[in-house]
Amino acid sequence: MKAMSGPVRETGALSNLPDATKGEVWIRVAEPGSGNAVFGRLAGDAVILVDGTPFGEWRENGRRVTVTDARILAPVAPSTFYACGINYVGHAEACSAEFDRPLESFLPARPEVGYRAQSAIIAPGDRIVIPADAPANVQCEGELGVVIGKPARKVRAADALDYVLGYTICNDVSVRDWQFADRTFWRSKNADTFKPLGPCIATGVDIADMTTRIVLNGELKEEFATGNMIYGVAEYVEAISEYITLHPGDLIMMGTDGHSPRIAHGDTIEIAIEGVGRLINPVVRDDRG
Amino acid sequence: MKAMSGPVRETGALSNLPDATKGEVWIRVAEPGSGNAVFGRLAGDAVILVDGTPFGEWRENGRRVTVTDARILAPVAPSTFYACGINYVGHAEACSAEFDRPLESFLPARPEVGYRAQSAIIAPGDRIVIPADAPANVQCEGELGVVIGKPARKVRAADALDYVLGYTICNDVSVRDWQFADRTFWRSKNADTFKPLGPCIATGVDIADMTTRIVLNGELKEEFATGNMIYGVAEYVEAISEYITLHPGDLIMMGTDGHSPRIAHGDTIEIAIEGVGRLINPVVRDDRG
Repeated sequence: MKAMSGPVRETGALSNLPDATKGEVWIRVAEPGSGNAVFGRLAGDAVILVDGTPFGEWRENGRRVTVTDARILAPVAPSTFYACGINYVGHAEACSAEFDRPLESFLPARPEVGYRAQSAIIAPGDRIVIPADAPANVQCEGELGVVIGKPARKVRAADALDYVLGYTICNDVSVRDWQFADRTFWRSKNADTFKPLGPCIATGVDIADMTTRIVLNGELKEEFATGNMIYGVAEYVEAISEYITLHPGDLIMMGTDGHSPRIAHGDTIEIAIEGVGRLINPVVRDDRG
Repeated sequence: MKAMSGPVRETGALSNLPDATKGEVWIRVAEPGSGNAVFGRLAGDAVILVDGTPFGEWRENGRRVTVTDARILAPVAPSTFYACGINYVGHAEACSAEFDRPLESFLPARPEVGYRAQSAIIAPGDRIVIPADAPANVQCEGELGVVIGKPARKVRAADALDYVLGYTICNDVSVRDWQFADRTFWRSKNADTFKPLGPCIATGVDIADMTTRIVLNGELKEEFATGNMIYGVAEYVEAISEYITLHPGDLIMMGTDGHSPRIAHGDTIEIAIEGVGRLINPVVRDDRG
């Protein structure tokens, strides 16, 4: 996978999905005809549909749909949706410089977690709609998404990855002025359409060997080692599950690194993570859409 | 309804439910046999079960269960779970005094909203389990819960109540030291079992005419006019839906008033709201349960 300048990629193309060679590539699609949300596994250019879900019992049901014909949905609708916040040193440094606050105020003292809203999730290719009254500094953040596979409570870090089904990609769209002015992140990070998610759940990938790229209108804006987190996936699963049961289909957004590019009406924003695919969404402003 | 001293009430009794004379009283129960979560309407001492949900199409299916035989569940599993935070002047004053901070720091400047986690929800009668390492100052908060009935986006306050199906009761259990020490409210307010919810969804009730009571071990600890909010239900629905679609079954916790009693191992805590019922839960500490 290589970030290219030049024409913007199609948002729903097969080329946005990873190879299913290292593990399974689970995709949730709207089944043609019924429109029901169903899971399937990528095989070549087809999604082999199953009854059930990858979080529990499932079996192939003999139906399939080609990727180009499929309407790909966000891969999960998490009952609880976690976000690590700042979890890379480079992003803390970038925030410290951009917002002129001490670096320490951005560095997490321990693996704590916040929440995002299921209501804000959209699928690959769906439009990110910036509210008409949002200040201009709207940024995207490219984040690894951890999809929980089975119930986890009081899990030790050494065992934590046994409870992870796989990984997806999130874009933590943020209106910075609202983020700092409001008491919570409700509209700054959870306005409708602010949480693009997908395109799949990839299993069997190695976080230590992955790169995250943020590509705006075909131009590479930021590139970082996905695994270079302050606290890793296993540490977060341990920390959360000390007090809280993680449930199948729950999602943890692991944070972004470096500078977060601004996005505006007419842009196309791509978050690419090697082995997980490309999450591409067009951007419109509500008063101009 | 009158707060009594004396013996603690049974947590699952018919007397905890409101009369179904002003509107419907919807209850979600585990159907005997299958264990499936199903909705029904209260009629006398029976729950008349339906196929479907009160948020959409439903019809009676001929089955019923008596309240005393039913395992009553939390009435909703909100896809997004909102909390108004401080929304009564008396509670802001109590917090200002207890935590020695200026009153202004507790008063909301506008109807903003935070989030709670679906993972923390428990049913009436379920045990609130205080983590073994939680500091001693664990408090309960008695709150009206607003259950959204149909999708709401950019709704004006004058129309907002059309989008509300009815009301339930929430207990916003909070570990105060964690609330102030942590970056977010993750474990302080969302540890497993920290969000008791129920016993029903009552429709057709008048918030302006209701009283909320917090009763600890049979003793009345706090009593306030439910409708005496800084920002009302309609204002919150308008504010949230300006940026965010509210979905059927979503829940908004409207805040508590006055002092929030401490709870500890061995206690039984009751939140009663006239017309909505009584939400009663026993309390244990994890290392002593």
